[in-house]
Amino acid sequence: MRALRVDGDKVTLEDVPVPRMEGEVTVRVTMSGICNTDLELARGYAGFRGTIGHEFVGKTADGRRVVGEINAGCGVCDLCASGDPRHCKTRTVLGIVGRDGAHADWLSLPERNLLVLPDAVSDVQAVFVEPLAAACGVLERCPRARDARVCVIGDGKLGLLCAMVLAANGNAPLVVGKHERKLAIARARGIETSSIEDAKKRGRAFDVVVEASGSASGFDLALDLLEPQGTLVLKSTFHGASAVEAARVVVDEITVVGSRCGRFAPAIDLLARGAVDVSPFVSEIVSLDRGVDAMALAAKDGVMKVLLAENA
Amino acid sequence: MRALRVDGDKVTLEDVPVPRMEGEVTVRVTMSGICNTDLELARGYAGFRGTIGHEFVGKTADGRRVVGEINAGCGVCDLCASGDPRHCKTRTVLGIVGRDGAHADWLSLPERNLLVLPDAVSDVQAVFVEPLAAACGVLERCPRARDARVCVIGDGKLGLLCAMVLAANGNAPLVVGKHERKLAIARARGIETSSIEDAKKRGRAFDVVVEASGSASGFDLALDLLEPQGTLVLKSTFHGASAVEAARVVVDEITVVGSRCGRFAPAIDLLARGAVDVSPFVSEIVSLDRGVDAMALAAKDGVMKVLLAENA
Repeated sequence: MRALRVDGDKVTLEDVPVPRMEGEVTVRVTMSGICNTDLELARGYAGFRGTIGHEFVGKTADGRRVVGEINAGCGVCDLCASGDPRHCKTRTVLGIVGRDGAHADWLSLPERNLLVLPDAVSDVQAVFVEPLAAACGVLERCPRARDARVCVIGDGKLGLLCAMVLAANGNAPLVVGKHERKLAIARARGIETSSIEDAKKRGRAFDVVVEASGSASGFDLALDLLEPQGTLVLKSTFHGASAVEAARVVVDEITVVGSRCGRFAPAIDLLARGAVDVSPFVSEIVSLDRGVDAMALAAKDGVMKVLLAENA
Repeated sequence: MRALRVDGDKVTLEDVPVPRMEGEVTVRVTMSGICNTDLELARGYAGFRGTIGHEFVGKTADGRRVVGEINAGCGVCDLCASGDPRHCKTRTVLGIVGRDGAHADWLSLPERNLLVLPDAVSDVQAVFVEPLAAACGVLERCPRARDARVCVIGDGKLGLLCAMVLAANGNAPLVVGKHERKLAIARARGIETSSIEDAKKRGRAFDVVVEASGSASGFDLALDLLEPQGTLVLKSTFHGASAVEAARVVVDEITVVGSRCGRFAPAIDLLARGAVDVSPFVSEIVSLDRGVDAMALAAKDGVMKVLLAENA
């Protein structure tokens, strides 16, 4: 089968055997999405070797249309036993840690990772379940974001999805970013936007700031915008260190909350209800045959989501 | 009256008028303690000009023996109305922000800031109410520290007080530090201690890490010691930036909690019950007349708490 694989800082489309793991389900991938994490992996940062891709929709041999949570836990530790393998110490992560991923014709995941999609969710929408779940994770890790004055830093896919999730939950967040075209996507959905400079002029007007800019300067900007005793939700997983004045966190008793993966069910629900519209994020749908080109396209400035399809 | 004042990076003992603020109480200072924050202020970092000192015990004109919470709020904002002026936006802070402090013969504070001491708490103990309250603040900002596996980074006064507060609340924390003599203070009270290297060998064995080292490297070390979804309580207010790999906070969904001032009542209670013994921290008691020398002494390596007394 075809598989888009990284080794060091090389990305190649290869012909590899269909994965068949004992006790798991082999899923035929219909469509997958290229994530910024894929681009980071292809730069060799995390030392991952194998098939990348963790956003997908597919079909099982028995005809179910499914998406799959990406953390595959050991199944027996306390965390796994409680039904949440996201921090299982021996977990593998689809296309990220120790497990081949979704930019391929087939992938393998445990049955417990799979969720059947309702008909109301299209294949294209389904590819967004994983990043949308990550956005929903903000509310899981910071419940006060539901009602508080929230600012989202970053107008990339993740930032905009976070803002859409907040809006779908009845909040009216402000999105701060540098890219007029991307901010326009939020505004078209009734979400207020601002430049960084204008946001700073409001003073420390936010109870919660979601940092989704993927930039080292986001941490400092967040502290400029947050009220004392405010909560900073970190979503970006960019590589490298931020210079953080820890004393600012202490004096103002800020809470910083790291947030990574979310559960899929709330995301599927939002899509099925039409509460979040992911269509403006689709830049292009490319055949898996052109996977290497698609990675280069996804890395271009201004390009949002590039999808890989069986045949496109 | 005598007052130990800073201006830029100069510390001088001066003769100034007794402070008499309308609607406040003038307190005769019996004894005050030199804090690391005083040393930072004397280096000119925060731009404070005036009388330093915020740890004290004193007497009111009507004969009450009192300590005083250091944040003086506006009295009318929502926070102040709820009885907690610690984050009032227009607050002054005794000897730190916009208000002359305690290294003087007299100081002024609002009546609502004062707490009368029980006889069981000596004057020397009472000077430790403020830093002990800051240590108690760990439990206020991170309630799970009561039962979790806790590591305290830093064997200075603040770190040891945090460990003592945790021990007094039934926990068995590990204190990590570099100074054998200081670690011995913890061990003499039945608290386990370790070098940094030995702590790292335990792997990520802690649910909560309290960073009280006052060092930029403490943040990174804390992330080495914390379990996924652990809580890092930041206590240090050292000047300068730490290099923080924000991605580590995100991937492991760490919560970072800034913690500054605590309420005085729990600290007074611990001292009155004999649950915390502050006597090993007293390095020397010096007359206020020798305040400038006392500041130099307090800055010396290995010196713990230097107290200033009316007459010593």
